[in-house]
Amino acid sequence: MINISVLGYGTVGSGVVEVLDTNSESIAKKARQPIHVKYVLDKREFPGSPVEDKVVHDINVILDDPEVQIVVETMGGVHPAYEFVKGALERGKSVCTSNKELVAKHGAELLALAKSKSINFLFEASVGGGIPIIRPLNQSLTADEIEEITGILNGTTNYILSKMDTEGADFAEVLREAQDKGYAERNPEADVEGYDACRKIAILTSLAFGKQVDYEDIYTEGITKITKTDMLYAKELDAKIKIVGSSKREDEKVSAFVAPVMIGRENPLYSVNDVFNGIYVKGNVLGDTMFYGKGAGKLPTASAVVADVVDAAKHIGTNIMTNWSTHKLELADFEEVSHRFFVRVDEVEKEAAAEAFGQVEEVNANVAGEYAFITKLMTEKEFKEKAVALSSMRNRIRVAF
Amino acid sequence: MINISVLGYGTVGSGVVEVLDTNSESIAKKARQPIHVKYVLDKREFPGSPVEDKVVHDINVILDDPEVQIVVETMGGVHPAYEFVKGALERGKSVCTSNKELVAKHGAELLALAKSKSINFLFEASVGGGIPIIRPLNQSLTADEIEEITGILNGTTNYILSKMDTEGADFAEVLREAQDKGYAERNPEADVEGYDACRKIAILTSLAFGKQVDYEDIYTEGITKITKTDMLYAKELDAKIKIVGSSKREDEKVSAFVAPVMIGRENPLYSVNDVFNGIYVKGNVLGDTMFYGKGAGKLPTASAVVADVVDAAKHIGTNIMTNWSTHKLELADFEEVSHRFFVRVDEVEKEAAAEAFGQVEEVNANVAGEYAFITKLMTEKEFKEKAVALSSMRNRIRVAF
Repeated sequence: MINISVLGYGTVGSGVVEVLDTNSESIAKKARQPIHVKYVLDKREFPGSPVEDKVVHDINVILDDPEVQIVVETMGGVHPAYEFVKGALERGKSVCTSNKELVAKHGAELLALAKSKSINFLFEASVGGGIPIIRPLNQSLTADEIEEITGILNGTTNYILSKMDTEGADFAEVLREAQDKGYAERNPEADVEGYDACRKIAILTSLAFGKQVDYEDIYTEGITKITKTDMLYAKELDAKIKIVGSSKREDEKVSAFVAPVMIGRENPLYSVNDVFNGIYVKGNVLGDTMFYGKGAGKLPTASAVVADVVDAAKHIGTNIMTNWSTHKLELADFEEVSHRFFVRVDEVEKEAAAEAFGQVEEVNANVAGEYAFITKLMTEKEFKEKAVALSSMRNRIRVAF
Repeated sequence: MINISVLGYGTVGSGVVEVLDTNSESIAKKARQPIHVKYVLDKREFPGSPVEDKVVHDINVILDDPEVQIVVETMGGVHPAYEFVKGALERGKSVCTSNKELVAKHGAELLALAKSKSINFLFEASVGGGIPIIRPLNQSLTADEIEEITGILNGTTNYILSKMDTEGADFAEVLREAQDKGYAERNPEADVEGYDACRKIAILTSLAFGKQVDYEDIYTEGITKITKTDMLYAKELDAKIKIVGSSKREDEKVSAFVAPVMIGRENPLYSVNDVFNGIYVKGNVLGDTMFYGKGAGKLPTASAVVADVVDAAKHIGTNIMTNWSTHKLELADFEEVSHRFFVRVDEVEKEAAAEAFGQVEEVNANVAGEYAFITKLMTEKEFKEKAVALSSMRNRIRVAF
C-alpha cells in the first residue's frame, strides 16, 4: 500500500480523492498496490465529507510522516505551494501537481531536486487538464527533435471565441454569459489576457527544448480586443480566430508567444472548439500530431493527477528522466519573429495602406467604411514600422496560414 | 552504447536506420547512451547503402550475439516474424516492432514472455503509425477505466473516403487514383475490406480492457459498397462517412467492430481527413480525448519504433508493465450491438419501410427514385429482421450520432 497526502481540497484536490475512490480497483492494479489517502491539508474542515477524519492544518504533519510517500499538490499559486512541495521532495516524497504557476516558475529546480533524491516531480495536469501531453512529450516523442508546439491551452478563452464565432456576439457579452455559467472567473484576467496560456506554453517549451523558459520572456497578448467584426472577416477567410500559445525552433533559435491568430481549415486546431484544448506538435521525423481533450474541469484534471500518482507509485526509488535543465533558454527576440498580419483600417486609408505595405491581399466582409487586408510575411518590427503610417488601425491579428 | 539489430530493411526498417542517424545526438541523450545498429537482417544485399556492411541473412547471427540487446522487427507478417521475435525474447533481447499482424495475433504471449525475462516487447508503431497511442493508453490513462475507443485507423481508406466526399467521385475511381499515387496497394484488400483496421482495434481493445481480443472475433465490414450517392446523403446530414474500428464497454461487456459509420460534426473524428488517423478515447473520469497524426509513412512510423528503442534502452533489465493478459476477452455478440441505421431503398418502398421500421427520420438528398431514412436505435439482429421486408435496399450505413 502507498500512502499519499493531498494538499488543498478544492476542485481538483477533491476530484483526486473521488477518482481514487471511483476506480480504486483498476488503479491499484496499475500501480501494483492500493493507493491510500492518509492526510488532506486544508485550512478548512470538511465535516461529513469522505476526508473528514483526514484533514490536517499543519504541513509538517505530512512532511514528518515517513509513511507518506507521495504528495499531491492541488492548491494552486506559487506560495506556499513551492515551500510545501520543496519540503516534500527534500524529505524523499514524490510530488504530483496540477499547479501550472508553480511548474512554470520552479519546474526545473524541483525536477533537479527530485532527481537528486531518486524520486519524482510529475505535472501532467498542469497543461491541458486531462489530455496526456507532458508524458507523451517526455516519453513518446523521444525519437524526434521538436520543431513546433502550438496549443489552444485555455478552455475559457476558446469557449468565448467559439461563442463569438457561432453567435456573432461581442467579447464583453460572451464573457458575461461565460461568467454566469461558471466557465469564466469573476476576475477573468488570467484567462482573457493570456497569462494562463503563457505559463502553459512556457512549460511545454521547456520540456520540448530541454531548457528553462521564463514565462516573463514570452510575448503575451489576450483576446479582449477581438470583436465580432473580426469574426466576420475570419468567416470570409474560412478561418477561425483562436488564442494559441506557440513555440517554434528555427535555425537553433526558439521563439515563443501567446496571441490570437487566424487559423485556416487545414490546421488541426481549426476544429478544436468550445472548452476543448488541442495541442499540435511537429517533430522533425514524426511530422504533425495533435492531442485533444478537456483542458480543465474537476475530473479530467484529477484523472491526469492520479495518472501521475500511479506513475510515481510504480517508480518508488527511481527517477523518471525529464529533459528540462535549469539552464535558461534565451528566446529569440519577438520583434524578429515573422507573421502575416490581418489588418483593418478606415476605408479612407486604403491608399495609405498600399503605400505602407505594398502588395496586400484584400479581404472584403462588407463592413461599411472599412478596408481590410492581409500583409505579406514580415517581422513584428517591420510591421510596427509600416503601421505607423496608418492612423486608423481598428485591429490587427496575426495569420497562421 | 546499446547495440540493436533491425529485422527487415524495407520502408519502415530503413526509416528506423535513417531516424537513428538523423537525430543520433538527441536520441543518445534521451536513451542515456548512443544507439548503434550492429546488424540488419534481410534476404537482399544493399550495396552502397549506409547498412551495406551490416547486412546478414541468418537470424542466428543476431540471436547468438550477446552484444545485441534490442531487436527491431519491421518485416511484417506473422511468419517468420513470430519465430524471430520469440527467439530474441527467449535470449533476453528486448523487441520493438511495427508489425500489427504479429502483435494482434501473439501480443499477449510475447508480452508475457518479455515479462518473464525482465525485458520488453514494445509496439507503439503497430497502431496509428507515428501517433503516440500505445504508450499513452498504457501509461497515461491509468487513472481511468476506458469506456470507448473509436479510431480512424487506416490512412488509405480515410484518404479514399475523403476524396469521394470532396470530389463526388465513386469508390473504384478514387481507389485507382490512390493506387497510381502509391497511397493504396495494388492488392488493396487488407485496407479496403477493413482487415488492417481490425487488427489495430484488436490491439487497442486488448490493451484497454486488459485481455486478449482475437481479431477473428471482430465484425469487420469494408468500404467497397460506399458510393458517391451515400456521400450526398452524408452532406445533407452534415455528416461524414468514415471507416472506424470501435470498441465499447457497456455493463461489463465489451463489443467491437470495424465498419463505415456516419459521423456528425460534433465528433472529434469528423475533422480527421485524408491520410490522417485519429483515435478517440473515452475514459470514465477523463471524458473525451483524441490522438491525431500520420498513421503511416516511413518516417512517422520509424519515429514510433525508435521511441520504443529509446524506452527499451532506458529499461534494460526492467519490464514496463502492460495490462494485457493472455486470458481471452469474450466480446459481446455483435448481433446484440445497437446502432441507428441510415437506409436507402427504392422510392416505391417508402410505405414498406414505414411498416417495417415504424417512425423514421427521412433524409432527402434529391436522388431520383429513391427513399432514404434513419431508423431509431436497434440491434443488428432487429435491423436484419426488419430489413427482410425491403427488397430494394441500396445501402445501409450505421450512424454514430
